[in-house]
Amino acid sequence: MQNVVAGGSSTARVPVTPGTRLLGVWACQHLSWQMRLFTSCLTRTAAPFPGDCLSQGPQTDSVESIRTHNVYSMTTTMMMSSHTIVLNNPRRRNALSLPMLRCLRQDLLHDVKSRELRVIVIAAEGPVFCSGHDLKELSTEDDVKHHSQVFELCAEVMTLIQKLPVPVIAKVNGLATAAGCQLVASCDIAVASEKSKFATPGVNIGLFCSTPAVALGRSLPRKVALEMLFTGEPLSAHEALMHGLVSKVVPEDKLEEETMKISHKICESSKSVLALGKATFYRQITQDLDTAYKMTTQVMVDNLTLRDGQEGIEAFIQKRKPVWTHSQEEKK
Amino acid sequence: MQNVVAGGSSTARVPVTPGTRLLGVWACQHLSWQMRLFTSCLTRTAAPFPGDCLSQGPQTDSVESIRTHNVYSMTTTMMMSSHTIVLNNPRRRNALSLPMLRCLRQDLLHDVKSRELRVIVIAAEGPVFCSGHDLKELSTEDDVKHHSQVFELCAEVMTLIQKLPVPVIAKVNGLATAAGCQLVASCDIAVASEKSKFATPGVNIGLFCSTPAVALGRSLPRKVALEMLFTGEPLSAHEALMHGLVSKVVPEDKLEEETMKISHKICESSKSVLALGKATFYRQITQDLDTAYKMTTQVMVDNLTLRDGQEGIEAFIQKRKPVWTHSQEEKK
Amino acid sequence: MQNVVAGGSSTARVPVTPGTRLLGVWACQHLSWQMRLFTSCLTRTAAPFPGDCLSQGPQTDSVESIRTHNVYSMTTTMMMSSHTIVLNNPRRRNALSLPMLRCLRQDLLHDVKSRELRVIVIAAEGPVFCSGHDLKELSTEDDVKHHSQVFELCAEVMTLIQKLPVPVIAKVNGLATAAGCQLVASCDIAVASEKSKFATPGVNIGLFCSTPAVALGRSLPRKVALEMLFTGEPLSAHEALMHGLVSKVVPEDKLEEETMKISHKICESSKSVLALGKATFYRQITQDLDTAYKMTTQVMVDNLTLRDGQEGIEAFIQKRKPVWTHSQEEKK
Repeated sequence: MQNVVAGGSSTARVPVTPGTRLLGVWACQHLSWQMRLFTSCLTRTAAPFPGDCLSQGPQTDSVESIRTHNVYSMTTTMMMSSHTIVLNNPRRRNALSLPMLRCLRQDLLHDVKSRELRVIVIAAEGPVFCSGHDLKELSTEDDVKHHSQVFELCAEVMTLIQKLPVPVIAKVNGLATAAGCQLVASCDIAVASEKSKFATPGVNIGLFCSTPAVALGRSLPRKVALEMLFTGEPLSAHEALMHGLVSKVVPEDKLEEETMKISHKICESSKSVLALGKATFYRQITQDLDTAYKMTTQVMVDNLTLRDGQEGIEAFIQKRKPVWTHSQEEKK
Repeated sequence: MQNVVAGGSSTARVPVTPGTRLLGVWACQHLSWQMRLFTSCLTRTAAPFPGDCLSQGPQTDSVESIRTHNVYSMTTTMMMSSHTIVLNNPRRRNALSLPMLRCLRQDLLHDVKSRELRVIVIAAEGPVFCSGHDLKELSTEDDVKHHSQVFELCAEVMTLIQKLPVPVIAKVNGLATAAGCQLVASCDIAVASEKSKFATPGVNIGLFCSTPAVALGRSLPRKVALEMLFTGEPLSAHEALMHGLVSKVVPEDKLEEETMKISHKICESSKSVLALGKATFYRQITQDLDTAYKMTTQVMVDNLTLRDGQEGIEAFIQKRKPVWTHSQEEKK
Repeated sequence: MQNVVAGGSSTARVPVTPGTRLLGVWACQHLSWQMRLFTSCLTRTAAPFPGDCLSQGPQTDSVESIRTHNVYSMTTTMMMSSHTIVLNNPRRRNALSLPMLRCLRQDLLHDVKSRELRVIVIAAEGPVFCSGHDLKELSTEDDVKHHSQVFELCAEVMTLIQKLPVPVIAKVNGLATAAGCQLVASCDIAVASEKSKFATPGVNIGLFCSTPAVALGRSLPRKVALEMLFTGEPLSAHEALMHGLVSKVVPEDKLEEETMKISHKICESSKSVLALGKATFYRQITQDLDTAYKMTTQVMVDNLTLRDGQEGIEAFIQKRKPVWTHSQEEKK
């Protein structure tokens, strides 16, 4: 098997420690590593995964066909309870082709209900995080039905991120454009290296970034979003931070460390509590204030009936570390 | 009476000049003051207040019981037309216990309809502005009904702040966490010292900050709010300013001065005009643009029919200082 | 004719190159220019324009009357496909009097459907960008009906900006207050010089900026907007950038260049694509996420059926410059 990670940037490499749970069909490979920080890297061969990812709505292509379309579209690695999805088609600037979108949907859904999985990181191989749609799929050679399929699947994946029961972190080290910028804006958290840039240049090629604008318009001040959309000019990482498109910016050599720090912090919490909190956040954000408080007040009460809700408070009062069940069981 | 303000930070001290109107039952006490800026400090003994605060919905405990629960939960001082509520239970990190919440509701409502009161400042004694709920009230020893009562009263107080006819300023000099961070986010204006920090660490103890998320989600970019909620890690004061959680950050030794400056500026305006403007702001913010403009256009016309509306414009044209009635009377 | 641009700041001057299309009735005048960058300046005489601007709803005054009210209220210049409207009544601090608002509405609508016009810039003559309403129109001498007319026309102009099929850029070099600040907040993009300031001081004269608050509340974090509205104190240009009221801040001597750069970038794109994208942005921003994605997904498909949609993608794939039709025609 070709090593799809070789020669790329460090963002694609995630250390694997003993106890790592492997997903689906994996190939393990040892790498010599400049910094000697990491000892191995797992590469997903894009073979079909068992599990609920295949039962998510109708799929016109079978998963097998993904392999023929774009064998190395994606790499998935896992460490402890953190699942890292690496967009891995740098020669095509990690374009969100239909096969890539299907892989991404699969990987986002894979094992997501397991007790072990607590956080998903979306990273990318190469200097471009993600360049958006594959324009070859949008030419006149394809018909309207095909175009619809591309945009519908893309919107499905973007909204899926918010619906997952675990936090999803974008780890950006490079350029994110169009639907690639939308992908960053759609994640719950985004950490970027200082060299990263963000743009929605669709207007330059006569295809206004109207679907990315949905995510941008909910992440950025209106004027900043519109200047990006009307001109296609990029935001720097620091501008993206100032305006709220990303939640943290660090030097490139600290990106791995910072992302890991956030992941580890999340992994220390109860999965069921995080899942309840995430779902509630996106539910209340569009409600009026009184409705939002009525709903969340009930959620707080429900949260306290969870085993992990009571365990956390008891542990705090008893000055000990909590022991989570991560389950949605209520305390008897 | 014990001096509840002694030894605390400067945030609890508000100068009282001749003409100060005292609220309810007060005890006056002279303090020696390092900077010799202030000459006295008023301390509220948490005795029951007369007035409309007692008629706000059902209360299971009588106000008398507050005194027994937590005698020194709160200090209220008044200067000119500014009412300062000091969270004053530093040993319990100013936790929003039920008695504290009841005191806060009372103090927010106290005298709020009087012509003299124009602005409320919420400050705190000690290094922690407010640590959120009292976890002892949320343990299994209490039942669901009790938990509901805590969260419902908290949501009531948070929404009350927006419903008051005067601006409410949070003056933060320290750590504000969980429902304490929600309190800051719920105020109209927030001024913070550079050392202040803001966090929602409920997830660490298995109780996701879902009610604080209502206020945070309406004050901060989505990604910043979610990183806070998922990790519990704090924002610095400057990050809070950059992202809009607070409206001003100053060095600690300027916090009093800056808050006073804003208070004084507000006190120079007409109470009825401020009340109309505040209510209108929160009403229009959730409306669609056309509805918002239709409603506010009518409000502008109504504003001009107020005595103070016409007085302001006449004074401006005549190049003199306006003399406000502060009343909602219309100009004949 | 008096030279209405003379002696003003550089913001009012827009270079005109051969090929410039003149609007309505124009007077052309050559100016000596310090930097020798520009060769001429066009000045609109505020005579009535032909075209659809006159058919936009009922007008109580005829357009002729504008000339008598305020002959030099506005200057309009045109370069390439960029239309610059200069608020040009510096002695009255460019107040948005009824005649000024009518001129602004006319100029915003003028020729807006022509293939040539691609972007509108709103600039101003003098140190004050715009001071808001003309208070003389809001005194008791005028009746409620007159006041309503002022606020209704103002709201109409502000919402018109979003409804136009071309991007509208505010180019701010000075103070923007009250409805003048609302004007900046209502534009799609805002570029400001470092010396610019933004305030809503209506509260100081007893007239709360409730209609400006509609635009501010949709551009700024809530606390920042409320501090401005309650105190009337100004935001600096850098604060305005940090909080999203403007999208770019540059030194005063770079303001022209930066605005031109953004304008030129916009002029390189297809008008029909920009129009579709702008309308879609404002439509989706108030929808819930699923509705927004459903709508915009269809818009992306429709965008691809446009001649310019397919031309852009074909040109990109063929590595050549696209040739736009700017029309809403669909590709056969």
